[in-house]
Amino acid sequence: MFTITFRFESGESVSIDANPGEKLLDVARKANVAIDAPCSGNGVCGKCRVRLASGALDAPINRHISEEEYAAGWRLACLASVVGDAEIEVPDIASAYRSRMKMADLSSPEEIAIFEDLRAQLEAAGVAFGSDLHFLPLTLSEPTLDDTMPDNERLLRAIEAAAGVDESRIILPYSVLRDLSRVLRDSAFSVKCVISRDQDRVLIRDVLPQDSAAPLAGFALDLGTTSLAGVLVDLETGKILAKASGGNGQIRYGADVINRIIESGKEGGRRRLQDAVVKESIIPMLSSMYRASGIDPRRVYRMVLAGNTTMNHLLLGLHADPIRMEPFVPSFFRAGDLYARDIGLKLNPMAELIVAPNIGSYVGGDITAGALVSMIWNSPEMSLFIDLGTNGELVFGNSEFLMSCACSAGPAFEGGDISCGMRATDGAIEACTIDKDTMEPAMTVVGDVPPAGICGSGIIDIIAELFRCGIIDGKGKIVREGPRILRDEHGMGSYVLAWQKDTGGVKDVVLNEVDIDNFIRAKGAIFSATETMLSSLGFDASVIERVYVAGGIGSGINMRNAVTIGMFPDIPLENFHYIGNSSQAGAYAMLLSSQAREKVFELSRSMTYLELSNEPGYMDAFVAACFLPHTDRELFPSVDF
Amino acid sequence: MFTITFRFESGESVSIDANPGEKLLDVARKANVAIDAPCSGNGVCGKCRVRLASGALDAPINRHISEEEYAAGWRLACLASVVGDAEIEVPDIASAYRSRMKMADLSSPEEIAIFEDLRAQLEAAGVAFGSDLHFLPLTLSEPTLDDTMPDNERLLRAIEAAAGVDESRIILPYSVLRDLSRVLRDSAFSVKCVISRDQDRVLIRDVLPQDSAAPLAGFALDLGTTSLAGVLVDLETGKILAKASGGNGQIRYGADVINRIIESGKEGGRRRLQDAVVKESIIPMLSSMYRASGIDPRRVYRMVLAGNTTMNHLLLGLHADPIRMEPFVPSFFRAGDLYARDIGLKLNPMAELIVAPNIGSYVGGDITAGALVSMIWNSPEMSLFIDLGTNGELVFGNSEFLMSCACSAGPAFEGGDISCGMRATDGAIEACTIDKDTMEPAMTVVGDVPPAGICGSGIIDIIAELFRCGIIDGKGKIVREGPRILRDEHGMGSYVLAWQKDTGGVKDVVLNEVDIDNFIRAKGAIFSATETMLSSLGFDASVIERVYVAGGIGSGINMRNAVTIGMFPDIPLENFHYIGNSSQAGAYAMLLSSQAREKVFELSRSMTYLELSNEPGYMDAFVAACFLPHTDRELFPSVDF
Repeated sequence: MFTITFRFESGESVSIDANPGEKLLDVARKANVAIDAPCSGNGVCGKCRVRLASGALDAPINRHISEEEYAAGWRLACLASVVGDAEIEVPDIASAYRSRMKMADLSSPEEIAIFEDLRAQLEAAGVAFGSDLHFLPLTLSEPTLDDTMPDNERLLRAIEAAAGVDESRIILPYSVLRDLSRVLRDSAFSVKCVISRDQDRVLIRDVLPQDSAAPLAGFALDLGTTSLAGVLVDLETGKILAKASGGNGQIRYGADVINRIIESGKEGGRRRLQDAVVKESIIPMLSSMYRASGIDPRRVYRMVLAGNTTMNHLLLGLHADPIRMEPFVPSFFRAGDLYARDIGLKLNPMAELIVAPNIGSYVGGDITAGALVSMIWNSPEMSLFIDLGTNGELVFGNSEFLMSCACSAGPAFEGGDISCGMRATDGAIEACTIDKDTMEPAMTVVGDVPPAGICGSGIIDIIAELFRCGIIDGKGKIVREGPRILRDEHGMGSYVLAWQKDTGGVKDVVLNEVDIDNFIRAKGAIFSATETMLSSLGFDASVIERVYVAGGIGSGINMRNAVTIGMFPDIPLENFHYIGNSSQAGAYAMLLSSQAREKVFELSRSMTYLELSNEPGYMDAFVAACFLPHTDRELFPSVDF
Repeated sequence: MFTITFRFESGESVSIDANPGEKLLDVARKANVAIDAPCSGNGVCGKCRVRLASGALDAPINRHISEEEYAAGWRLACLASVVGDAEIEVPDIASAYRSRMKMADLSSPEEIAIFEDLRAQLEAAGVAFGSDLHFLPLTLSEPTLDDTMPDNERLLRAIEAAAGVDESRIILPYSVLRDLSRVLRDSAFSVKCVISRDQDRVLIRDVLPQDSAAPLAGFALDLGTTSLAGVLVDLETGKILAKASGGNGQIRYGADVINRIIESGKEGGRRRLQDAVVKESIIPMLSSMYRASGIDPRRVYRMVLAGNTTMNHLLLGLHADPIRMEPFVPSFFRAGDLYARDIGLKLNPMAELIVAPNIGSYVGGDITAGALVSMIWNSPEMSLFIDLGTNGELVFGNSEFLMSCACSAGPAFEGGDISCGMRATDGAIEACTIDKDTMEPAMTVVGDVPPAGICGSGIIDIIAELFRCGIIDGKGKIVREGPRILRDEHGMGSYVLAWQKDTGGVKDVVLNEVDIDNFIRAKGAIFSATETMLSSLGFDASVIERVYVAGGIGSGINMRNAVTIGMFPDIPLENFHYIGNSSQAGAYAMLLSSQAREKVFELSRSMTYLELSNEPGYMDAFVAACFLPHTDRELFPSVDF
């Protein structure tokens, strides 16, 4: 038994016993140390770089580690085995794109614009807001020796009278009974109940002193494969009380849903995957939101979840294997009767968990909620809604019909599978131009700090600019040389955005040919999916009147460049609209409005699901799209260089 | 900080740190060491005797400890303070009457007779049996690439078709969804559901493989202040699967409900009192029953609780203070929507907790369930139902009316407040005669082992015999001398039933004048309550046609002797019937039959509650009854010696 100590840039450290021969990545997982391993630990992605500060590890050199780096102690955790005591430095860059949580500044109108806009649009479309959860104030007569009715009966009779519902149809759960006696006496029998109606029943979710100022809060969560985003909302007013985003802790079990499902099928895997997202991502996010807003967790009465089908299953701790194995049948599309406590969240004990409905194994609640936000169901215009996540999902149609499909884009849009990729948080290069002659870049970096990595919108810009400048060819290979071009011993080229000596980071910020290749496959998946779905309807891209782009890629996305690299169809730029995180906005609407909830369920029932892998032309279309902008340049007349 | 080590006769020991000045009883509670303290730790009852084996304690001598005993190290834990390290011997006698759990031998027809008799009687009275919880076998079509309906929808549609209930009215909770996918696939889509109907809804409580042999089990619990008794039952057949009894772990916080309520009102008290009964009494009892029967806890789908109002509140972790403080208002009489999980029991996650209804602060579910069993509601005969527990409760009436009241008898009937008292388990003297000339006793001891103490029925016999032999007078004072009479330095007399040298126990088994006085007050409370209730109706004892006696006092109760000491009214002996633990039997019926459940709720609504403390004559009647057999001997014409 040896002792492995992990040290973080923050100065903190954690030690754990390990057996000889154990994989360092497994040791880190046991110690709950966040090391990125998007490829789930087989030496492919190179994300799990750590530095051996002292002691010993048995680890090979690898294409992701140069000889100088190896000499300096850099190793891939997934390829390193324990052979003795060791002290390991874990660079923050590794966890940056995974778990750094960010609280939104609510004083910035941009942060809440999407919610306000959506509400206005939905109300204009006839979808009323107004919570079905509300306060019912009640002043009860105080008990006396002549009136010794028990507390629960006293309350039930008052609700019966106030709500006009027979006592036998009022549910008073244990969580309310438990402190009822104290609450009644502390408030001199003047209380307000939190009630909701469900079919013909009234559910008492809470009883508070009538002078309590606590808002009736709800929690909307967009749960992505790579990132999550949550808002805490006042259910009476719709006001955003707190907003946060962060990484999905499951990422150390694989970057995509397939690797996660495989991991979840192992002994104890369901629990591990659930814990990774609940305990490491959602609970810390909620804690930060409680601190920022002063909300008491017990005053959160509803949670809405919008996530893809696999994320829903893993969050709920369900068996996910049937999703990836023929005939691809999940446990549920629509599930009712769920509570936040079922997944281990300590909100109000009666807080329900509403899950935005899935419509297929790979088109989930993030898309049905997002389709609501796109408003494409409310217009005669033929519109395409694209959600750029780890999976790319598309919905095409109008007020008459809707069709959806999904393609596996991989995590590249969110910075995964990219050697210097990161989410659009501080330090991320989010936009870039390159001088054709000098090959020097000009960049915009999130948070005005030295660049630490590149987020999705930045990658699109860089590839488009490299292509425009003739630095890379249609296959993404670097065909020019210069001070910013590096080559490794195999000749693989990298374009350097920022030098380590200038940034003070752990390595240069570069985009290399493997990254470009990964990104080209991601954009090729999106484009070929669009083409295939349209062709299944007998259409081509010319019918598209509007394109709504959603996802964490960021508002910085340059649509011109996205068309340049052949990611989106070549239609007039003014018809593209970036609508932000539509999954989160849809969850917000479902939290507040039962009509919005019904609308999403209605959309889920009417939406056709196209299984791309069953479409004969899809693979050919994908291969043809894995080129800049496309092997068939005629599809991109506006890309004329 | 000192170290206190508690050693048990079993050879086990436990050590804990303690601060100087801490009370030894509190240290024992912290260490979870069961030391009886029925008087809740103020030196009155003398039950908490422990022996200082080494080290030091600051503890006074006390009337419960002789000088020889003090020299030998005996101390009262409640009066002892920590002054250094110490090793303490905890005699088993102290815990015998409290926590020894006993599994019933189901091969003995006596153990199950009460349940079978009750069922026959209820069915004869038109109360049908037959569970409203049942198995629904379903064979689902297996999914294919052409039929990819999700698992939950597949199940819901099948239930909709089989049960004729719209899908929107079928509740599929998380606990079922969680493993649904696995169960369906492991059983080749051939399953049986455990379902119940509630109003117009169907609740799916479980889904099992169709070939599962597990019975549909339920748990009925009689929760007394001193003891508890449980049965595990097959809900389909009514068969008793396991039966057990044990002590209520709360006893270390006080012998009666008032002391427990006071304790529960202290910081953390609700949790302590709940833990004491749930973790120390109910869970160990259930574990033994699971072992004995081979039942899986997750296959227990319903629990019925019958207990007094305070026990119900403390078990549920509710505030109990309002029960004992004017105007004496509990949190509930009738509570629905409770689940076994609410009190921390891991039965099936959807196992409901049905609580037999209370009708007053001191007449609870044990009495409403017991009244069902007494069948007095089904006969025109004027009948008295007496439940002899720590509280004595009475119900008087017939098929036309029912009135109930409660009196605080104290724990004497169950062996509490008696220096050598114990429950009717192995070693308890349960019956006794005394030779008038030699004053020598002849005893029956439970389990045919040397006598270790005296249970309730034994105490009745001993007092009646001592009185008949002229050894004690009407006030319970010992007025003869002899080899079996001991006197302490204050002249207090004891009658020795068994000598320590003969039994090998820790002390002589005696009944002393304090014990007799305690018991006379207990029997006086019962008799005066009977008198006062009848007189409030304008009756006297002559109207009583039948007396049904229930409670843990044991089938050994000698009714003749109970009349002799003036505990029961002097009516012909053939009209007395001992009906055993009616609270447990009533809970059994409620477990199995929704009609029995309705009947108990109907009884609870129709029963009048008489608050004795509001009756002007009660205190005088009580004082007059604290005499053998009574100050008014004309009330007991048959007691002619």
